[in-house]
Amino acid sequence: MAASSVAPTPLLTDELDIVIPTIRNLDFLEMWRPFFQHYHLIIVQDGDPTKKINVPEGFDYELYNRDDINRILGPKASCISFKDSACRCFGYMVSKKKYIFTIDDDCFVAKDPSGKDINALEQHIKNLLCPATPFFFNTLYDPYREGADFVRGYPFSLREGAPTAVSHGLWLNIPDYDAPTQLVKPRERNTRYVDAVLTIPKGTLFPMCGMNLAFDRDLIGPAMYFGLMGDGQPIGRYDDMWAGWCTKVICDHLGLGIKTGLPYIWHSKASNPFVNLKKEYKGIYWQEELIPFFQSAILPKECTTVQACYKELAKQVNAKLSNVDPYFTKLADAMVTWIDAWDELNPPSKAGLANGSA
Amino acid sequence: MAASSVAPTPLLTDELDIVIPTIRNLDFLEMWRPFFQHYHLIIVQDGDPTKKINVPEGFDYELYNRDDINRILGPKASCISFKDSACRCFGYMVSKKKYIFTIDDDCFVAKDPSGKDINALEQHIKNLLCPATPFFFNTLYDPYREGADFVRGYPFSLREGAPTAVSHGLWLNIPDYDAPTQLVKPRERNTRYVDAVLTIPKGTLFPMCGMNLAFDRDLIGPAMYFGLMGDGQPIGRYDDMWAGWCTKVICDHLGLGIKTGLPYIWHSKASNPFVNLKKEYKGIYWQEELIPFFQSAILPKECTTVQACYKELAKQVNAKLSNVDPYFTKLADAMVTWIDAWDELNPPSKAGLANGSA
Repeated sequence: MAASSVAPTPLLTDELDIVIPTIRNLDFLEMWRPFFQHYHLIIVQDGDPTKKINVPEGFDYELYNRDDINRILGPKASCISFKDSACRCFGYMVSKKKYIFTIDDDCFVAKDPSGKDINALEQHIKNLLCPATPFFFNTLYDPYREGADFVRGYPFSLREGAPTAVSHGLWLNIPDYDAPTQLVKPRERNTRYVDAVLTIPKGTLFPMCGMNLAFDRDLIGPAMYFGLMGDGQPIGRYDDMWAGWCTKVICDHLGLGIKTGLPYIWHSKASNPFVNLKKEYKGIYWQEELIPFFQSAILPKECTTVQACYKELAKQVNAKLSNVDPYFTKLADAMVTWIDAWDELNPPSKAGLANGSA
Repeated sequence: MAASSVAPTPLLTDELDIVIPTIRNLDFLEMWRPFFQHYHLIIVQDGDPTKKINVPEGFDYELYNRDDINRILGPKASCISFKDSACRCFGYMVSKKKYIFTIDDDCFVAKDPSGKDINALEQHIKNLLCPATPFFFNTLYDPYREGADFVRGYPFSLREGAPTAVSHGLWLNIPDYDAPTQLVKPRERNTRYVDAVLTIPKGTLFPMCGMNLAFDRDLIGPAMYFGLMGDGQPIGRYDDMWAGWCTKVICDHLGLGIKTGLPYIWHSKASNPFVNLKKEYKGIYWQEELIPFFQSAILPKECTTVQACYKELAKQVNAKLSNVDPYFTKLADAMVTWIDAWDELNPPSKAGLANGSA
């Protein structure tokens, strides 16, 4: 309990895949080379399959384009977004590793206040390997961190914590703002390094950003579906949000924890706010109904696996959100297809084991 | 909404009282002089009334000892703890100001990472004057702070926030640990300055420490009862915790926010862990039942004032916790007495106005 381990963080090179939606920026992998080169990369190309992505020498990777996705999933490929970075979730599905780290190609290595390069992956692994505290708030942040602990008044029965399913990292430089905020504050930069990791309490939703995100695939993988975005869909930029809401509701139900805070990456450039507004505008008013939906979603006790929880959620999406827009009927179907595809690629013998229990 | 005000923080010298449970340490006020001397102090002496407290020249203060409390409250004085710093809540009751800042006499001025003295009071006022965000989590912490905002995916309808009722500050040097943790980690010091303020989400309890705490008396004052501790009581060191649990449940019900994080004070010395263990040990196992009680407490819609909420909570304490220990029957009675005394000193015309609504 609350042990301040001074052992070095294991690298988990054989247990973690790095999933990248696409790589437009050639500097990206070079910059991350010292941190990424011992890991296996899964690159999921989001657009034209004939376009070649140049991966520099020395990286161990597999690359999937739309043709591969169609070939591997057959008709079930319909659940994977096209021409949108939401396609990255295909990489979560084909991975055979316990942990996933996903990052955007406009995210570079950030520096800590002392000027040292931040090893984002190492911090994510730290976050995932030590417990979370979703049932009670600790005012000194992560109580398992060296030099910290549970404060006076923290119930002793809760100090074992809960398994950590998700580690949500943050961004220096360009903050992850929506289009209206981008438009209103074009010059805003995040320069504040907050030296903390904290658990999002049970029952509280949060906006999960997919730019700098790690998770335990065995614990929560099937909930990390990035929805239907991009080509042929009425919205974009809600892929990670959708995954975050579903994941949070399921983690709360299964007694799993989600952490946010460290590590920071350097988000190099803001996407075009006008393009973003077009992608987001339906999401901006839909989410006013989605949030209350997820806040009040209750999963029955019988749902003891992530897959069962997710299919139940799909049912509720269909029943309660179809009146918001026909898109949600389609999305609910895609959610079911996603789980079917997941189970096909991850036969239950392996995938069904490591889920938490209610 | 999310306006980054660059206006200086108002000092509120006419609207804020500083309540100090007692002053054993003569350096205390001298160290705080630059920050405190323009404010009115309310000192509540916790022990022997014949002992004289020497307040240095230049401070505007009123001092209450046990004789004063007995004289002012008559038989209702029974709700105020004796020989325990829990007596400080008498100061909240006699204050006529909108805001209260309370601090222990072993808390000194801390320094920020640049070496500058931290004006804790100024940061508390900042926290109290800008809204809280209890209904949804913002991953970039306080969205109202300069250089920050709500992140992508934060529902727009929630960006007005909620009125802030409580600002809970933290401690550098000696962390606020319980006796078992103090005993196990005698050398642990908090050296980490986390540059963040965040709202404790609705539905989440937290351990509220009374060492460095500010609140809006008009919004939540009557809930800040520090219980029955010290002389003649079976426990100690749960005064602020009790106030925190009650306050959180009531804030959640009334739609008010509670923030934690900045400002830091320098907590100079650890109290004796052996003495603390004696005071705490019943609380340590009682709290295992108290937390579920507060987590599941529901206040009826009809309770629209803090006083009504608090009396309802007293009723539930009596009904559901009396079987834990007869102490809770006594405490439930004292809670009612506290509200009666509060209303006597703060006639409804004034006190009943500023409460939030359900």
